[in-house]
Amino acid sequence: MEKKYLFSPGPTMLPPEVLLKMAYPIMHHREPEFEKIFSEIREGLKYLFQTKNEVLVFTSSGTGAMEGAVSNILSKGDKALVVRGGKFGERWGELCKAYGIEFIPIDVEWGTAVDLKQIQKILESDRAIRAVYIQASETSTGVRHPVKEIAEIVKKYENTVLVVDAITGIGVFDLPMDQWELDVVISGSQKAMMLPPGLSFAALNDKAWKFVEKSNLPKFYFDFKKELKNALKNQSSYTPAISLFVGLQESLRLIRKEGLEAVFKRHEMLAAATRAAVKALGLELYAPGSPSNALTAVKVPAGIDGIKLQNLFFEKFGITVAEGQDRAKGKIIRIAHLGYYERLDMIMVISALEMLLKEMGHTFELGKGVKAAEEILMG
Amino acid sequence: MEKKYLFSPGPTMLPPEVLLKMAYPIMHHREPEFEKIFSEIREGLKYLFQTKNEVLVFTSSGTGAMEGAVSNILSKGDKALVVRGGKFGERWGELCKAYGIEFIPIDVEWGTAVDLKQIQKILESDRAIRAVYIQASETSTGVRHPVKEIAEIVKKYENTVLVVDAITGIGVFDLPMDQWELDVVISGSQKAMMLPPGLSFAALNDKAWKFVEKSNLPKFYFDFKKELKNALKNQSSYTPAISLFVGLQESLRLIRKEGLEAVFKRHEMLAAATRAAVKALGLELYAPGSPSNALTAVKVPAGIDGIKLQNLFFEKFGITVAEGQDRAKGKIIRIAHLGYYERLDMIMVISALEMLLKEMGHTFELGKGVKAAEEILMG
Repeated sequence: MEKKYLFSPGPTMLPPEVLLKMAYPIMHHREPEFEKIFSEIREGLKYLFQTKNEVLVFTSSGTGAMEGAVSNILSKGDKALVVRGGKFGERWGELCKAYGIEFIPIDVEWGTAVDLKQIQKILESDRAIRAVYIQASETSTGVRHPVKEIAEIVKKYENTVLVVDAITGIGVFDLPMDQWELDVVISGSQKAMMLPPGLSFAALNDKAWKFVEKSNLPKFYFDFKKELKNALKNQSSYTPAISLFVGLQESLRLIRKEGLEAVFKRHEMLAAATRAAVKALGLELYAPGSPSNALTAVKVPAGIDGIKLQNLFFEKFGITVAEGQDRAKGKIIRIAHLGYYERLDMIMVISALEMLLKEMGHTFELGKGVKAAEEILMG
Repeated sequence: MEKKYLFSPGPTMLPPEVLLKMAYPIMHHREPEFEKIFSEIREGLKYLFQTKNEVLVFTSSGTGAMEGAVSNILSKGDKALVVRGGKFGERWGELCKAYGIEFIPIDVEWGTAVDLKQIQKILESDRAIRAVYIQASETSTGVRHPVKEIAEIVKKYENTVLVVDAITGIGVFDLPMDQWELDVVISGSQKAMMLPPGLSFAALNDKAWKFVEKSNLPKFYFDFKKELKNALKNQSSYTPAISLFVGLQESLRLIRKEGLEAVFKRHEMLAAATRAAVKALGLELYAPGSPSNALTAVKVPAGIDGIKLQNLFFEKFGITVAEGQDRAKGKIIRIAHLGYYERLDMIMVISALEMLLKEMGHTFELGKGVKAAEEILMG
């Protein structure tokens, strides 16, 4: 028998309620029925992003909304500050480069969070910086950056906005956009939103919209102003991925039903259990200082082939865990617990990890990881 | 009982086989299983586009690939020729404008095809033009432009490429990319490809790729070169809309099974029947000279409110037909027959049109439209 399980930080496993909705006959996006769905989605997204601002929806991967957060926020000659603590931090730099934007990188050691003092120092010494680009949760390393504290620094500069890639943050841990005064928040559908990939999201506050007004970089498909104008009429600028919108209505209902606070607590518990389990097996966390509750990055122990471990997960148990990317390739595996995951899902993946590590010759007592997880999952 | 029918030129009705495939549990896009799907899709798309060139797939509406056909083909200071014979022709102009590209518009009267001599004359007199942008089928007016003949003109200019928006052309009528030497061909998923919206396509020949090599306009998400590099490894640059890819595999199989020639013949028959039917009801075609087989644009007869007619289609029969856009608003309705449509589908929409027109006071003999259609549909 072949059963398959996703423990990758996007795409993630999906609720059957959502999958089935997406198999409904397609409706037209200019019909009142779709506009009602659109309207409900807008409210649901505001709840999820904890904001009164409009949350724009684009038919694209998360990278599309990230590109928009460069091409709509900045103008020719503007300067940016980019926190590069992983593959997705690097993407902010690549995006700036593509648009001819000069940027100062803060190269953070992979597996660690950015130093607030460095941000403070650069902003203070270079008043030409118009935007700070960061990840709330860096998916390639499993690090959570201190977004709240960074926002407190950036908000002192009226000519600088904070742009937060929260693709694996929104719906995972508390990121109250309005309360923390986050200027731009980006997300994607295939993570905690419990949807297939194909939708990206961008929310902007009033401060950020002022930057959009002035922005003169070229843009068309990811034109935030145009999208806002249409969203207020429950429409998208271009034909939207209708089936994903219909799925999103359902997944936002599931999130509302559970309640954001419970959603955050669940992620916290699953993450804590996973971290406790891998430590009980004698493994080291890749991001021990500031781990994200979206995924747990684990160092592959000495003598074990990381790529082989990842392959065996799939071959022996049908489980997809993520490997390390770029400089972390072969050195870590990443176990996701964001979205449609429950306590016993984590028991499965931890048990599989135990059996594989034992087979590969790692020394530890079988069952110890599961036990450590259970102690936390019992609540 | 409420049954619903889409006769809009995108989104279109979808085969249940495709819808159900999209409800399958999601798989990871870096798994061999997905790469196999990707590989089959690549072959299927080459068959559909009648090309040996790679057909790139983007997670976006069709507009995304259109934007890429500007930002990847042109460079700063380049000039373009834009055929504007409807809303989508105008979009080419808007895209050029967004990227600071100077363009010469050929403003074609809505409902008519472009005059070849005009293209010839402008290309001859202005050797700075690097690209000609056109629609194979202008969805807003129901016009088919003479792409084959335009390609014959453009190919005489080695520093000019032809970019064809074939979003409602591919899979509808014959557009052999290689044989006709079309340089760039764009399409979208929610038309004859029998999928929900969310994927766009771009195929380039060697001549066009040389333009891409030189292009210096900013681009990132719609970076053709990067996408090609990844496609050759059965990967996409960014997380793709996995469920739509899985659906695409199925719909391409359906198209191959029917065979392209049969697909074109079916569209031709449905279009001919629809045109004959509306003429039998005393209505006029909006594009009598060069109608596209993708959709039939029909002038609303004097004394009938076009918006009301469109609304009654939905209220009384659950049918979505498209209204006129911009300057054609209220003046036409557009009945689509592209994608998953069969003879009896057209009988339904023609019958509904008869009943509604009769009710609204238009003078004609009930059943005449259906009869005219049947005479053609009997083959």
